[in-house]
Amino acid sequence: MRSDPARLSFEIVARDGDARAGVLRTPRGSVETPCFVPLATRGSVKGLVPDEVADAGYGMVLGNTYHLMLRPGGERIATLGGLHRFMGWEGPIITDSGGFQVFSLAFGGVADEIKGRRGRPPLDGGVLGIDEEGVRFRSYIDGSERFLSPERSMELQAQLGSDIAVAFDECTPYHADYDYTARSTERTLRWLERCLDWHRDGGPPGQAVFGIVQGGVHEELRRASAEATAAAAVDGIAIGGTLGRDKEQMGAVVAMTAAMTPPAAARHLLGIGEPDDLVDGIAVGIDSFDCAVPTRLARHGMVLAPLPDRRYRYDVRRRAHESEPGPLVTGCPCAACTRFSRAYLHHLSRAEEMTGARLLTIHNLVYSQRLVAGAREAIIAGRLSAYRESIHAGAAPWEAS
Amino acid sequence: MRSDPARLSFEIVARDGDARAGVLRTPRGSVETPCFVPLATRGSVKGLVPDEVADAGYGMVLGNTYHLMLRPGGERIATLGGLHRFMGWEGPIITDSGGFQVFSLAFGGVADEIKGRRGRPPLDGGVLGIDEEGVRFRSYIDGSERFLSPERSMELQAQLGSDIAVAFDECTPYHADYDYTARSTERTLRWLERCLDWHRDGGPPGQAVFGIVQGGVHEELRRASAEATAAAAVDGIAIGGTLGRDKEQMGAVVAMTAAMTPPAAARHLLGIGEPDDLVDGIAVGIDSFDCAVPTRLARHGMVLAPLPDRRYRYDVRRRAHESEPGPLVTGCPCAACTRFSRAYLHHLSRAEEMTGARLLTIHNLVYSQRLVAGAREAIIAGRLSAYRESIHAGAAPWEAS
Repeated sequence: MRSDPARLSFEIVARDGDARAGVLRTPRGSVETPCFVPLATRGSVKGLVPDEVADAGYGMVLGNTYHLMLRPGGERIATLGGLHRFMGWEGPIITDSGGFQVFSLAFGGVADEIKGRRGRPPLDGGVLGIDEEGVRFRSYIDGSERFLSPERSMELQAQLGSDIAVAFDECTPYHADYDYTARSTERTLRWLERCLDWHRDGGPPGQAVFGIVQGGVHEELRRASAEATAAAAVDGIAIGGTLGRDKEQMGAVVAMTAAMTPPAAARHLLGIGEPDDLVDGIAVGIDSFDCAVPTRLARHGMVLAPLPDRRYRYDVRRRAHESEPGPLVTGCPCAACTRFSRAYLHHLSRAEEMTGARLLTIHNLVYSQRLVAGAREAIIAGRLSAYRESIHAGAAPWEAS
Repeated sequence: MRSDPARLSFEIVARDGDARAGVLRTPRGSVETPCFVPLATRGSVKGLVPDEVADAGYGMVLGNTYHLMLRPGGERIATLGGLHRFMGWEGPIITDSGGFQVFSLAFGGVADEIKGRRGRPPLDGGVLGIDEEGVRFRSYIDGSERFLSPERSMELQAQLGSDIAVAFDECTPYHADYDYTARSTERTLRWLERCLDWHRDGGPPGQAVFGIVQGGVHEELRRASAEATAAAAVDGIAIGGTLGRDKEQMGAVVAMTAAMTPPAAARHLLGIGEPDDLVDGIAVGIDSFDCAVPTRLARHGMVLAPLPDRRYRYDVRRRAHESEPGPLVTGCPCAACTRFSRAYLHHLSRAEEMTGARLLTIHNLVYSQRLVAGAREAIIAGRLSAYRESIHAGAAPWEAS
């Protein structure tokens, strides 16, 4: 770990057990933690404009290097003044490395697969080759051959001009065996050094770099990865790779891995964002999360709600909601719940109207934001355990105590 | 014509040649004319929320009875408090009769066909039968058999609770011959009487009814239709049906038909909304227009712009725009042009991001609104002819003189 306030500083303002409330400071502004980071995958939080994301309580978004390198390209965004200016977002931006997407292609799955919920798929999906140098793959847009490596990923993230770049890693899936995972984890550490080498000279002055802890579900691999990552000149720690076959194992792997990282480090958990996972992750010391869940669910008519027995969601397209004059979730302060009925959002979602996807996106993002903001308050008040139990028992974020 | 300020009043505040600037007053508020009316086809202006439509300068929207009867249904909207409450729009709403859509199905086309731009297609498209009583057709959603008639259309529009209902008409296409068009035009007049009979007892107290002048491109049929419509107990006049094979004939048919209607009547031109058609229609005395053009073009990456040689539009998805840091249209006051680059909107449109469709929709609606608002100012100042020439010569609405 290095400490350079000109890039990033992380101040812990309160602790409650292993959980922490903090402030993450970047040259483009500060974000209170724990926080959730919405995805601006291709340069927009799908359906929203930046003001709406900020109004939902968010200070930071995540841009996808993989998607942006394919379209419109890192050079073009650099020419146009960087990703902040391109998309009209003035606050901090994290960019991922592109590794997750490109290895999802290779291993055949996306998030569900990486998290171990599927059987082993064939290696293909546009990936032409993986070796020590990097990954060759075909663009899903025009079929052209592309290359991603530690250096290229850092160069792209420099072109995007994000405030937090993430080192290029091999994201191993759950079905990989111990030996593969061990070799892959070692390679990720070699790639981290190459990322930091490139960034030392080529990185934008204010850009922080997070290393990614890999190691699958194996304690000794996670420990080796965590220790080596913390020993490198990184500004923060991200936890990546497979977290196990189910939520129970995921909780254990996240808790174990968080405890292996330095207490002062900002800890980001990649790709996790269901309501119970957020409060559980916060309880074991995660400071930030990014995930497609709230925004992707919204585009499929799924509404985040205090329903622990139903994975904290319901399908507003179901007939049961067709005549409901009340809001999506009682008491929710979002623009969808305060202005429109569940019956109207049922109708818009069934009719596949853009306005419906957009309003549900706002709801799901406000719901997630209130959940983590409530956890922060609870940490400061020393009652996170009760808050977490309350969320698990079916309380809405604004009524959990 | 009847005059009942409890339903509708239309005051002409200035004239310039055949053009008029006016105020259309309904129980739910007033709208300055000439005006454009955006489509809220299925209960939302696609991609937008009501505040954005109002912020773009609009006071009135149009809901489609045909689409809303199929989903979510008139009864449901009535139960939920009417269309205004359902969609969160407090200003006046026009509903069409459903006739245009159902006859477009029957005659095989939609707007392009009705306006005479296609050859004769077979009669089918879900229509099971057309007779004096009404039209039987299949729902495009679930295949169920549905029926639309003058009485049923008025009942649906009463359930929707619009401020201006439109009488159910047979919308004859350009390819229909004189005899068919003559018989159809007479039927539309019989249907108008049935609409008014039903509305006398069943219509909501504050709801106005517009009759539709048909007659195709034939002067004597248009005259007979206009005179009979004006003699009925309607609150305003809509001009419908085919307007000819091209823009020249359309201009002549609209001018001719407008001149056949009472000078004091509010005149609505159905389904027309390209920039040149708007200024030309205004010049011959049209007071309001509705059209899918601005909103539909936006969803296909097409940007309204002062380009008379290119039908007042360009395709932002073209490569030529990929690096353009300036706005969609220089000087445009819309939220897309003042906040985002053309390069960004090029990217979002190519990537088919919702945010792109939404921002282009805002641009196209602001462009259209500024165009008609500029015409209103020009009428009041007695310089509409110069304004119209200026628009035809390629001036933007905010710079036309």
